[in-house]
Amino acid sequence: MEFISGVMKKDTLEIGELLAGDYLGKKVTVNGAVHSIRDMGDIAFVVLRKREGLLQTVFEEGKTNFNIKDLKENSTIEAVGVMAAEDRAPNGIEIRLESIRILSEPKEPMPIAINKWQLKSHLETLVDLRPISLRNIRERAKFKIQEGIVIGFRDFLHCQGFTEIRTPKIVSRGAEGGANVFKLDYFGKKAELAQSPQFYKQTMVGVFDRVYEAAPVFRAEKHNTHRHLNEYTSLDFEMGYIEGFEEIMAMEAGALQYILELLKKDYANELRICGVDLPSAQNIPAIKFEDAKQKVSEKYDRPIRNPYDLEPEEEVLISRYFKEEYDADFVFITHYPSKKRPFYTMDDPADTRFTLSFDLLFRGIEITTGGQRIHDLDMLREKISARGMDEEGMEHYLMIFKHGMPPHGGLGMGLERLTMKILGKDNVRETTLFPRDLSRLEP
Amino acid sequence: MEFISGVMKKDTLEIGELLAGDYLGKKVTVNGAVHSIRDMGDIAFVVLRKREGLLQTVFEEGKTNFNIKDLKENSTIEAVGVMAAEDRAPNGIEIRLESIRILSEPKEPMPIAINKWQLKSHLETLVDLRPISLRNIRERAKFKIQEGIVIGFRDFLHCQGFTEIRTPKIVSRGAEGGANVFKLDYFGKKAELAQSPQFYKQTMVGVFDRVYEAAPVFRAEKHNTHRHLNEYTSLDFEMGYIEGFEEIMAMEAGALQYILELLKKDYANELRICGVDLPSAQNIPAIKFEDAKQKVSEKYDRPIRNPYDLEPEEEVLISRYFKEEYDADFVFITHYPSKKRPFYTMDDPADTRFTLSFDLLFRGIEITTGGQRIHDLDMLREKISARGMDEEGMEHYLMIFKHGMPPHGGLGMGLERLTMKILGKDNVRETTLFPRDLSRLEP
Repeated sequence: MEFISGVMKKDTLEIGELLAGDYLGKKVTVNGAVHSIRDMGDIAFVVLRKREGLLQTVFEEGKTNFNIKDLKENSTIEAVGVMAAEDRAPNGIEIRLESIRILSEPKEPMPIAINKWQLKSHLETLVDLRPISLRNIRERAKFKIQEGIVIGFRDFLHCQGFTEIRTPKIVSRGAEGGANVFKLDYFGKKAELAQSPQFYKQTMVGVFDRVYEAAPVFRAEKHNTHRHLNEYTSLDFEMGYIEGFEEIMAMEAGALQYILELLKKDYANELRICGVDLPSAQNIPAIKFEDAKQKVSEKYDRPIRNPYDLEPEEEVLISRYFKEEYDADFVFITHYPSKKRPFYTMDDPADTRFTLSFDLLFRGIEITTGGQRIHDLDMLREKISARGMDEEGMEHYLMIFKHGMPPHGGLGMGLERLTMKILGKDNVRETTLFPRDLSRLEP
Repeated sequence: MEFISGVMKKDTLEIGELLAGDYLGKKVTVNGAVHSIRDMGDIAFVVLRKREGLLQTVFEEGKTNFNIKDLKENSTIEAVGVMAAEDRAPNGIEIRLESIRILSEPKEPMPIAINKWQLKSHLETLVDLRPISLRNIRERAKFKIQEGIVIGFRDFLHCQGFTEIRTPKIVSRGAEGGANVFKLDYFGKKAELAQSPQFYKQTMVGVFDRVYEAAPVFRAEKHNTHRHLNEYTSLDFEMGYIEGFEEIMAMEAGALQYILELLKKDYANELRICGVDLPSAQNIPAIKFEDAKQKVSEKYDRPIRNPYDLEPEEEVLISRYFKEEYDADFVFITHYPSKKRPFYTMDDPADTRFTLSFDLLFRGIEITTGGQRIHDLDMLREKISARGMDEEGMEHYLMIFKHGMPPHGGLGMGLERLTMKILGKDNVRETTLFPRDLSRLEP
């Protein structure tokens, strides 16, 4: 009987291992994809693409078991050679090759030069070619940073006593309602794809007090803009026993601070590759919706057209205002008008035309919507009825209020938008591995 | 201008804080849901349900600002009182109440006694009532353990150099094909819900070498059994530069060992509540498909009916065999017949009727399918064509092989099944927050 007893030690070394160990002057085995070959005649530089970065190997005529002419870019190889210091090489090391073993070969040359520092093609082309354009060092670095954001979000909330939950994506009724839902047939029943985990995360506040989920949400919105996706990752949390919605904003500020610190610490290399200038979330101004509108209208001499919502241009101007006046990258806009917020939002008892809710703007774009929720069954039913909605399909949601819910609230943050703005990009497709929009279902 | 500068310190204390601090004999503020009231006349025990467990508070007639008759179970309250040692109370402490503030009240009594240790209702009833039945201490403990499994899976792979990815769930073509896909209209195009992240995770091996994702998958299977769900969480990883599929099994064994250690360390309380006896994943036997079939057929005198797949009863018998013979809870079944494996599975060069693939059985049920994938474009195309499939909709998948892929493989593990068997349950609905099956779309 054969037994499997845990991770097998590999003979091949990764870049971090080469740098950490005592390998200078020693023979090592490495593997990787042939990122580029610079053939100088008697000598050739074969740069390998590995998960931690690039590794230079050096071919010298007569010292190896192969002919450099037989080696193709984008082959994957295993190579044996002696490690040497070399200031001009990535990480200051190179491997002087003795032998290679070809693991796989490409059938065709790349349609784009993925080994260039910057890919010059249009975004649409790059997205069409994502399965391979992501192999570019700068393209892939964006998604390492995105990984770091999610890790930071989860780790921070875990330490704050939140529990991670997994809520269903096929639902009988979406949280927001309206037309922007994807519908599907579920064994003869009408079903929808979840627009948000709203009902479920509130439900789970009744169970664990504090919960979070980082998962896909689906919106059949017919906008094809630089900021909309039809499937995106929502970073959601919901917390009970709050005294006010300021606690939710405070928790988000804490999460952002933690995420930015984590990126600085664990993703320094990727930040450098992407040329990222991290923002500060230390002190985030908070201003009422109406005041914010007023201020930018005055400062930038722009008439207020829609008193109930922020136009995208206003979001840009508000961000500009707070950057200019307070050097702030983030700004909370509070007390949104009640009529533009979902029914479960708590109205401000001081003025019920407004709500105890907020958006977070970051460098000109809304990345978060959050607020306190109604936790009293009667108040919730009144709001449902006042909006002309019906309770059908909400029985399980209403059940939690019937049997007691603490005061609570939470938020949803769009991962791709947050990543986009951290990276200084202006199209959310830049920071979505495989974006889904009005005209794109592939790759 | 108001500024939000990070997490606000709460006046209320959690159980961990009460136990860690110097609070004996001191006045403290706590909050929670009224889990149970035991009214003895002059004295009453009011047990609060908090996220970390139960907290006993004591009402004494004349010493507080309220009448115990006015307090309802399942209200949420904030309470002030003096902390005292009390061996018979949970965690050895109690709060002697001075005052309470009611934060919310239920409208109706619970339809089930969620404050009982064990809920006696049928599973179907409990699932119907999940929004509130999850408030039961043992019910919710199952999902804390599930959280721990996911955290362990991710942390382990992160440390092994894997990158977390987020792949689309709305796709133009599912990985497995066949009839068990949910279809939807995507702005006039035919779309499907992803049955697995297979194509995308292989694609990302070309980018990051090693990747993982813990996310929902969707299968429109018409089985209504104790082990099938139509939406479940798949713990996926995929790794490049493998020498053989044994490396994948070894990585999975490592992940399971790490997860079990993490549960033992960080979820000891929940394990105790659920009465869990953790299995060992130290040495997992691996046996060929045909040999496993043969062995159980002989030992348990059972004819082999289907030579190409394992029947559920055979999975149970194989597990029983390895428990009896080797005291093993897990067993890898390797070299599945080629005709029962997806087209992208690498055939065994030694005997192409079989594949370099495996399932992992755990206590009688398959929890993982994995294996080495074909990385050569020509070999892949031959397999597609031999199966009478066409390449339409696979252009982006084939692109990665055209431009070079390392030898690679991976697996998908069903989170709910793994949780179920760790907990010693026999219905996957027990360990799914809000299960989706043939007849269930709610709650």
